[in-house]
Amino acid sequence: MNITSLGTAQYPSRLKRCVDDRQSVPAGILRGAKAQPGDDILFELAGAREQLFFDPSAARAGIVTCGGLCPGLNDVIRSVFFELRYAYGVQEVLGFRWGYQGLDPERGSAPVVLTHEAVDRIHLQGGTILGTSRGPVDKARAVDNLIRLGVNILFTIGGDGTQRGARDLFLEAQRRAYPLAVVGIPKTIDSDIPFVSRSFGFLTAVQEAARVLDRAHTEVRSVQNGIAVVKLMGRHAGFLTAAATVASQDVNFALIPEVPFNLEGDRGFMSELERRIVARGHAVIAIAEGAGQELLGEPGEARDASGNVKLKDIGQFLVGKIDQHFRGRNVPFVMRYFDPSYIVRSSPANTEDSILCDQFARHAVHAAMAGKTGLVIGYLHDCYIHVPIELLATQQKRLDPSSPIWSAVLSATGQPHRFE
Amino acid sequence: MNITSLGTAQYPSRLKRCVDDRQSVPAGILRGAKAQPGDDILFELAGAREQLFFDPSAARAGIVTCGGLCPGLNDVIRSVFFELRYAYGVQEVLGFRWGYQGLDPERGSAPVVLTHEAVDRIHLQGGTILGTSRGPVDKARAVDNLIRLGVNILFTIGGDGTQRGARDLFLEAQRRAYPLAVVGIPKTIDSDIPFVSRSFGFLTAVQEAARVLDRAHTEVRSVQNGIAVVKLMGRHAGFLTAAATVASQDVNFALIPEVPFNLEGDRGFMSELERRIVARGHAVIAIAEGAGQELLGEPGEARDASGNVKLKDIGQFLVGKIDQHFRGRNVPFVMRYFDPSYIVRSSPANTEDSILCDQFARHAVHAAMAGKTGLVIGYLHDCYIHVPIELLATQQKRLDPSSPIWSAVLSATGQPHRFE
Amino acid sequence: MNITSLGTAQYPSRLKRCVDDRQSVPAGILRGAKAQPGDDILFELAGAREQLFFDPSAARAGIVTCGGLCPGLNDVIRSVFFELRYAYGVQEVLGFRWGYQGLDPERGSAPVVLTHEAVDRIHLQGGTILGTSRGPVDKARAVDNLIRLGVNILFTIGGDGTQRGARDLFLEAQRRAYPLAVVGIPKTIDSDIPFVSRSFGFLTAVQEAARVLDRAHTEVRSVQNGIAVVKLMGRHAGFLTAAATVASQDVNFALIPEVPFNLEGDRGFMSELERRIVARGHAVIAIAEGAGQELLGEPGEARDASGNVKLKDIGQFLVGKIDQHFRGRNVPFVMRYFDPSYIVRSSPANTEDSILCDQFARHAVHAAMAGKTGLVIGYLHDCYIHVPIELLATQQKRLDPSSPIWSAVLSATGQPHRFE
Amino acid sequence: MNITSLGTAQYPSRLKRCVDDRQSVPAGILRGAKAQPGDDILFELAGAREQLFFDPSAARAGIVTCGGLCPGLNDVIRSVFFELRYAYGVQEVLGFRWGYQGLDPERGSAPVVLTHEAVDRIHLQGGTILGTSRGPVDKARAVDNLIRLGVNILFTIGGDGTQRGARDLFLEAQRRAYPLAVVGIPKTIDSDIPFVSRSFGFLTAVQEAARVLDRAHTEVRSVQNGIAVVKLMGRHAGFLTAAATVASQDVNFALIPEVPFNLEGDRGFMSELERRIVARGHAVIAIAEGAGQELLGEPGEARDASGNVKLKDIGQFLVGKIDQHFRGRNVPFVMRYFDPSYIVRSSPANTEDSILCDQFARHAVHAAMAGKTGLVIGYLHDCYIHVPIELLATQQKRLDPSSPIWSAVLSATGQPHRFE
Repeated sequence: MNITSLGTAQYPSRLKRCVDDRQSVPAGILRGAKAQPGDDILFELAGAREQLFFDPSAARAGIVTCGGLCPGLNDVIRSVFFELRYAYGVQEVLGFRWGYQGLDPERGSAPVVLTHEAVDRIHLQGGTILGTSRGPVDKARAVDNLIRLGVNILFTIGGDGTQRGARDLFLEAQRRAYPLAVVGIPKTIDSDIPFVSRSFGFLTAVQEAARVLDRAHTEVRSVQNGIAVVKLMGRHAGFLTAAATVASQDVNFALIPEVPFNLEGDRGFMSELERRIVARGHAVIAIAEGAGQELLGEPGEARDASGNVKLKDIGQFLVGKIDQHFRGRNVPFVMRYFDPSYIVRSSPANTEDSILCDQFARHAVHAAMAGKTGLVIGYLHDCYIHVPIELLATQQKRLDPSSPIWSAVLSATGQPHRFE
Repeated sequence: MNITSLGTAQYPSRLKRCVDDRQSVPAGILRGAKAQPGDDILFELAGAREQLFFDPSAARAGIVTCGGLCPGLNDVIRSVFFELRYAYGVQEVLGFRWGYQGLDPERGSAPVVLTHEAVDRIHLQGGTILGTSRGPVDKARAVDNLIRLGVNILFTIGGDGTQRGARDLFLEAQRRAYPLAVVGIPKTIDSDIPFVSRSFGFLTAVQEAARVLDRAHTEVRSVQNGIAVVKLMGRHAGFLTAAATVASQDVNFALIPEVPFNLEGDRGFMSELERRIVARGHAVIAIAEGAGQELLGEPGEARDASGNVKLKDIGQFLVGKIDQHFRGRNVPFVMRYFDPSYIVRSSPANTEDSILCDQFARHAVHAAMAGKTGLVIGYLHDCYIHVPIELLATQQKRLDPSSPIWSAVLSATGQPHRFE
Repeated sequence: MNITSLGTAQYPSRLKRCVDDRQSVPAGILRGAKAQPGDDILFELAGAREQLFFDPSAARAGIVTCGGLCPGLNDVIRSVFFELRYAYGVQEVLGFRWGYQGLDPERGSAPVVLTHEAVDRIHLQGGTILGTSRGPVDKARAVDNLIRLGVNILFTIGGDGTQRGARDLFLEAQRRAYPLAVVGIPKTIDSDIPFVSRSFGFLTAVQEAARVLDRAHTEVRSVQNGIAVVKLMGRHAGFLTAAATVASQDVNFALIPEVPFNLEGDRGFMSELERRIVARGHAVIAIAEGAGQELLGEPGEARDASGNVKLKDIGQFLVGKIDQHFRGRNVPFVMRYFDPSYIVRSSPANTEDSILCDQFARHAVHAAMAGKTGLVIGYLHDCYIHVPIELLATQQKRLDPSSPIWSAVLSATGQPHRFE
Repeated sequence: MNITSLGTAQYPSRLKRCVDDRQSVPAGILRGAKAQPGDDILFELAGAREQLFFDPSAARAGIVTCGGLCPGLNDVIRSVFFELRYAYGVQEVLGFRWGYQGLDPERGSAPVVLTHEAVDRIHLQGGTILGTSRGPVDKARAVDNLIRLGVNILFTIGGDGTQRGARDLFLEAQRRAYPLAVVGIPKTIDSDIPFVSRSFGFLTAVQEAARVLDRAHTEVRSVQNGIAVVKLMGRHAGFLTAAATVASQDVNFALIPEVPFNLEGDRGFMSELERRIVARGHAVIAIAEGAGQELLGEPGEARDASGNVKLKDIGQFLVGKIDQHFRGRNVPFVMRYFDPSYIVRSSPANTEDSILCDQFARHAVHAAMAGKTGLVIGYLHDCYIHVPIELLATQQKRLDPSSPIWSAVLSATGQPHRFE
């Protein structure tokens, strides 16, 4: 994934130890277990390289943030800027505005030149100072623009779609023999990007979600037969719902995409909920937005600007079903519905995420300066690694119902293993 | 408002200074101004009385919490209990369950006997350990029950309706010559009970609401032409919306029941919003749930269990109108709607509210032990006072658009004085 | 306290209601009580005046922050600037650096010109962007400098000493017939300035102090015979210690300057502490820094740069005495000493203080623009008022041991009324 | 490390997937790098085993917490109890009081029988409900006592010393042929136990420490030439200081045990600090308590009750040296010293630590029920593992100055790589 051969510049902070391209991290490390998919994959260890591809004095970098908000975006922008400026001496860093459309001069605003003063305190606030949007970019016009601007390093902060777009940019530049390093920093509040065991913003989201679960618990404890439904992020993966459930310890039912559930029947969700209400007088339900989609009928064809299929609203659906069930059984109840997604994702990064953002950002700069391209920074087995973007498409990261975290969910909730 | 004459028991904590019934606080204190309504009202100063009506060893107290949640309910319950038990030596305090229905043995669960251990840490959690519900009580059955249980002191924690019901209970008891002290502790997250300049839970609600406004601001700053609508509590009064707006300093439009507004026209809300969006690219709107009801057509007749007219949803209405307006003008925008009421009201009390709850609770106990009845504890000009319940009905507490707080809202938002 | 007669300019935000100089607020409002000192004092109501003394287009304002840190300083600076700029149209506002020495060109740095951008987000951080220092100013050089700079309005944010210095400046300017409005905004984390029932920063300090008390309680609950001593601010007044004690509900002994205590003797503090430890196995002691000074021997003559007598360290003294006592009695114990003052005072303002800061700031601007001088903004009976600086020296604000807050402390701690 | 052969009982929650003893995790996973110490070590994967050693109906468990406080102790106690009770059906769980002395009937209080009610909300508070103390235990008396009480499973929550003591207990029991499973849960706020990449409580400590660093930064920014020294935990390892520095981004100098530094000389710490002060006017210094011990002269022989050599106070030493240096150079400065250790360690666990505590606890229960003994639960490369206690003594976990986190510290502070 190197652009071509390395340049002659050297890592300026020479007292820091550099990493060797031959150092690698295997995807699978468990021994004595059955071979698992990905066991044979080896990733380059991320870190500063002694030989640089780009001469810092000639390098010009750009940063773009795409897709939905996630805690820590500003932390990443800031640390990318500071590492470029102070560790490498890169003089100009551009911030492209409003996501990928900012790369296209026909659609977007002109980029801003980032300065120390402008980014110095941004890590204290949520959101992204660059702005964001959904949707792809015209790769030809974008690369034209990057060439015109003299940008030879581009950091793309975003999810799968963004990183696939990033790969197209680097391929387009390659086609034109323009040496462009495109390095992605994976953004996923759902924590569903493979080879990224901890993604920035996730822990903050868990914290905020757990806070809402606590409030929901308070609400339903204070009324007779109170039922709270809390819809959390998680289109395809239940990590956020699971982690928030374990952190809160006050959830009674956690529903995620990876564990399908039946509503009806004596062992279905409704019966279990009714038993809980009769026995204990209150219940808190945490549900990932992507859970139970199979209950909602055929998926629609509507898509958002990022190209994601628009999910049907399982939260409102479940509220309706519960309402119908309990009225039908003549069991009085009080319903409280929470949909805190915007509040969760716009939070500033918490301490742990601040550190994670800083590390992802600086490793991305190391990769780019060494001329790596077409990759995202991953995090596996406590190591930062280089993950080729094409590899992201080959695997999915989903919550394994036999993993310790789901076991902890079952223990914390006391819910049955299956609603069947 | 004394039940009859005082008893012979004396305030046990005799080293603390007692208050004299002749000490009073005037409703109006401004001089040189035009006379204002209420100027001539004098309130008894609250506080411990030297002579008690009830012999602590013979007194039996009850507590009930009614209506919607409000931060600090548990703090009040706890301090009422501790003051009764340790400052006066009252041996038995009952907690009635699930609001007023808990007073009626035909409808409610039996009361619980409160203990030191049971209430010791409850101030750290939101909600009410007694549970709550909406709706009135059958006064005859309730007083029968109180007599049967030997309860001669009842603390009613709730809003206007609750306190009117409380008055009926004391009148019913009086009719039967049963010496029952009923003392109310006013609960109003909207801060709209007269003669209560600061009500418990309000400041916590402001804090939580300001937190959501901050998140809304982050959301709309991070996208092009982002518009956030944040619906806050406030059926008839805009205090919460105003205070949260001033605390946040990031709101651009604050809409409250006391200041009607037009949507259409060149100086109407929509035009001002459009100008803001064109000029600045984002806007945060804080709207009290009771604002703009006149725009929603004739009020419905639907009422909730507390007897409140059900408000039409101004938040969703406004979202729809904005959507319609901006689509009509072909101005692209991104809408974010927040309805954080449950999250706000179920918060544990913050520091200031903890202190306020403690003070309301202890003053209520002083009043009851001295045989005061048919009153709520008020707070005026930094003094705790006795407010006869019948007085509550004679006045309304509304936000005065010429007051410093609304002036601060206008300064913080930069919004016009009127949308006309 | 007007500089001379009013000018011809008018309040530009004419739709807001203005206040009349004849409206006043009495210091004493309780009726039926014995006359109290200050009962006959009347204060002008603060607020916008219709007639201005300064023509906004000709006015030039300065702000200075003096003395120790207090939460909310930046909020005040920001709202003073915004009110001057946007409500009145004053074009230039200077920030004097590092306290009073910034007024003296021989000692300080040059003032900075404040801008919208520079102050826009400062309310989110603690401390003061202008910097601060202790110590007086040479009034002649300072007034020379103000005249040279064309500054005709000066806002002084600080404590008693600062405000006395402020008065000297205005008298010096008056002597030279230079129309200078000097308006003070009282800063006191101890809440000990008379006629200011709630001073900005105090509630934040209470919150932070209560947080430390909670941690201290955790420490001593987790070991056998754990004793925590937490020293809090309060040179002459115990308001902070009292309020934090009531908020925390976990303190067992609160010691303040207004309530002297004996250490020795069967009813002295040491015996009570020992009884508590033997009975309950842990104790939390909150002590104001000014408490028990009489136990420390003759006051030294050392003074800090503000001219305050340096207090001897009652915290360390008490720790030593406890150590000595328990060793002497052969009672094992574990001591934990907390001195969180810097952490407490450097906190950003919480929600309530944000609102208070905004109100103090805007009322100060109203006063200055109307040509008021030699006053501080006070807050009494829920009203913002004008307090002549010379009046501050005539009275002291101390915690009254017969007030509701001290009664609440006695209830929360269960400590005896006197250690004698 | 199994006690003997397995029993006949089976894991009751049979729907959860069990782990196989043959599954293992290697200590070293990097490939292509030079062989590292520990590369060849393999650890058993932690998790539920299908075959149990103890019949849950016959098992009796005990829990003990030892040493200094650490966020999350109560979370661990609670999850150990719940996993024993609800996942396995163990009926009796004892809590030993006040650390190891609680195992010795001659020295400690009798153990308490834990109940659902007693532990249900304890995770919301810091400290340990069992109490703690330092110091070893008489193994003979302790094992006598465990046998007498019928305790066959003991969970020891504590640091190195505690776990070595735990091993002695299991060996003593083995000597007597008493089947006792002793499973340790490693507690280290310094994060210095080998094979535990993330220890519970550490992230909360980082969060609290970063909060104090933020306050220190506010203090020194608000005065001229402000210098803050913040002493943080870290007897032998600088992980906490490093992580808090990266999280805060406001530290200018971070000093840790692993990176010795010179004070004097042109490239020594004092000269660098002076340059910083002259250039920027303020500085924040974060120093681990174990840093620079070589500067303090010969280590004393004093030890605390845990047997740790008492460190000399580098914080106060540094404050003295800075004072001396700046006075000597006639550079005015303002010093602020922070020693927040008690505040940091007594915090309740944050979200991430709550999850970690839960996982450590449940994995410890799995190990014990399967008859594992003489081990602690470790966490390596995202896997929970079994670490034989004797292995803990063979390796030290120290911060590697060539690791990404120290590189991030150097970038965040801008400090030189060495003070020489």
